[in-house]
Amino acid sequence: MNQDSPVDFSLQCPIPISDYPTVLLAHGGGGRLTQMLIERMFLPAFDNPVLENLHDGAVLDVEGARLAFSTDSFVISPLFFPGGDIGSLAVHGTLNDLAMCGARPLYLSAGLILEEGLPMEDLWRVVQSMQGAARRAGVPIVTGDTKVVDRGKGDGVFINTTGLGLIPPGIHVSPRRARPGDVVLINGAIAVHGMAVMSVREGLEFETALESDSASLHDLVARVLDIAGEQVHVLRDPTRGGVASALNEIAAQAQAGILLGEATIPIWEEVRGACEILGLDPLYVANEGKCLVIVAQEAAEAVLAVMRDHPLGQEAAIIGEIVEDHPGRVFMRSRIGGMRVVDMLSGEQLPRIC
Amino acid sequence: MNQDSPVDFSLQCPIPISDYPTVLLAHGGGGRLTQMLIERMFLPAFDNPVLENLHDGAVLDVEGARLAFSTDSFVISPLFFPGGDIGSLAVHGTLNDLAMCGARPLYLSAGLILEEGLPMEDLWRVVQSMQGAARRAGVPIVTGDTKVVDRGKGDGVFINTTGLGLIPPGIHVSPRRARPGDVVLINGAIAVHGMAVMSVREGLEFETALESDSASLHDLVARVLDIAGEQVHVLRDPTRGGVASALNEIAAQAQAGILLGEATIPIWEEVRGACEILGLDPLYVANEGKCLVIVAQEAAEAVLAVMRDHPLGQEAAIIGEIVEDHPGRVFMRSRIGGMRVVDMLSGEQLPRIC
Repeated sequence: MNQDSPVDFSLQCPIPISDYPTVLLAHGGGGRLTQMLIERMFLPAFDNPVLENLHDGAVLDVEGARLAFSTDSFVISPLFFPGGDIGSLAVHGTLNDLAMCGARPLYLSAGLILEEGLPMEDLWRVVQSMQGAARRAGVPIVTGDTKVVDRGKGDGVFINTTGLGLIPPGIHVSPRRARPGDVVLINGAIAVHGMAVMSVREGLEFETALESDSASLHDLVARVLDIAGEQVHVLRDPTRGGVASALNEIAAQAQAGILLGEATIPIWEEVRGACEILGLDPLYVANEGKCLVIVAQEAAEAVLAVMRDHPLGQEAAIIGEIVEDHPGRVFMRSRIGGMRVVDMLSGEQLPRIC
Repeated sequence: MNQDSPVDFSLQCPIPISDYPTVLLAHGGGGRLTQMLIERMFLPAFDNPVLENLHDGAVLDVEGARLAFSTDSFVISPLFFPGGDIGSLAVHGTLNDLAMCGARPLYLSAGLILEEGLPMEDLWRVVQSMQGAARRAGVPIVTGDTKVVDRGKGDGVFINTTGLGLIPPGIHVSPRRARPGDVVLINGAIAVHGMAVMSVREGLEFETALESDSASLHDLVARVLDIAGEQVHVLRDPTRGGVASALNEIAAQAQAGILLGEATIPIWEEVRGACEILGLDPLYVANEGKCLVIVAQEAAEAVLAVMRDHPLGQEAAIIGEIVEDHPGRVFMRSRIGGMRVVDMLSGEQLPRIC
């Protein structure tokens, strides 16, 4: 009765088994090994024109409407952290992926994988948190699914959220649209989410508690699009892998260079200090309430003003520009004037940060 | 910077903690405890008009188009089983949920949660299998996400698929539309998927290998809708919890009774035998290539003929009817003429069957 023809296992695994006989944590870290999985295995296997766009989500034409469609699974540890939890994070994360396609989020789905033995009260906290985040954003969770796995085969709760959004006419956001002369902005200080989570894991203490920046960016993005429209070329939320990984992906896809000014990148002192203690480069640390906005030069000041006027953009800054030199690569001018390459991360910096 | 107001933890957990201090496997089994989670926790928390429809997916109005949107996570163990694997199952499952909304499937997303240490070759087999199932169905996987969790915090691969489909004009499928006089059909023999998986887990051997019925039903459903349109009242794939659980849900939502004829329900001898050995009632065993079709009486014979004419419906049968008596409940006339209640399953029969 089964309509499947057997899978053709004669095709060779496109990841060299001698180098990578098994999946490593770094394959999920957002760095070079994640890229390898996507580029060598997933893209060729699932080959289709939409997937080729390599966006934070797919852009689909359905009955004349341009829809954004994006999925994300959340496996963060611990489930509850300063400033948020896996529930609100899962809602914000997918709302943000839709916003990064230039879309107004419309609907969310939620798929929960629970581990046997999870305290029922913890599930209730997570569900309330999802609901709160969805309600504040005005985007309903309209369909869901729950599975339970045996003790020791999961880790409390994993959540998949998938979202559907509508892209307004005249908006065309894509990493390929970055071009020399464009300006790179960010809406605030980097590395906050990653360091808030790491501070719990590592037992670090700060004078003031460091809270995750987890937030839904779709309202801020809508204002940016309202004022700059077509001149907004790229939107990207620098989550796992941080600002460095996101900009490297954009540089590669646009085949343009990106030049950052170290002194212009907003970072809080306690975050810088925590990164130094743990030996982490903040450029590679995850954000959950930040977006990179790449706009035509003539729109940059207006976009900066709109961002700073928004509660989630008060520390917004211009941090770099798209350049003709060294296409596909990211460079940074240091505080003392030297230049350094900002490369893709090779290994795994912060596992299970989202 | 965090726009979240803290979650209000003063609200009491709607599941009685004294009875259920932690999540049990049965909360994911599709029976009574799953229902309790949905009805007491998820529905009130995520309260919105679309969710209230309690479909296999949400039906959405977007720019004048009626879209179906459905999500499902797959945690089956083992990953590879006779007749399929978690990859093809994840594609078929969500395509079927869209079809059960009366939709033509358009697009899929895929979210993978991998366990550190998963053999890379196994990942490749799963990816190829997903791709094969998607290609045969003509539905592209357009967006995806991959996370990796540490060894011992997952179980090889979990897959979430979420799908988007388009509901043709004139189609209105909903469990609430079942009404007395309607006829209940199924496209073939029950309990095959569950027993194929259990035979591997329990080391049972049969004269001929029992293979899962995992298949994509959207083409069969499209033919049924083509011939019977508005007269198709309910579509439902009886996956975890089996035919009994699916019909109980429909009876409750329609506030109608359902009367089955035991002798009319297709079942293979080896499946019946395996169920007897393991002490399982086949009415509660999962199917992955079966659908229940509830149609107006006058359309029943034509629908049966169309189903039997399809490769996935050669053993299709009329198995029952919607009745006025005992609304909300399912009864079955046994082979020897007695009547018995077919209730919701109370505990967990087959964990991690999908």
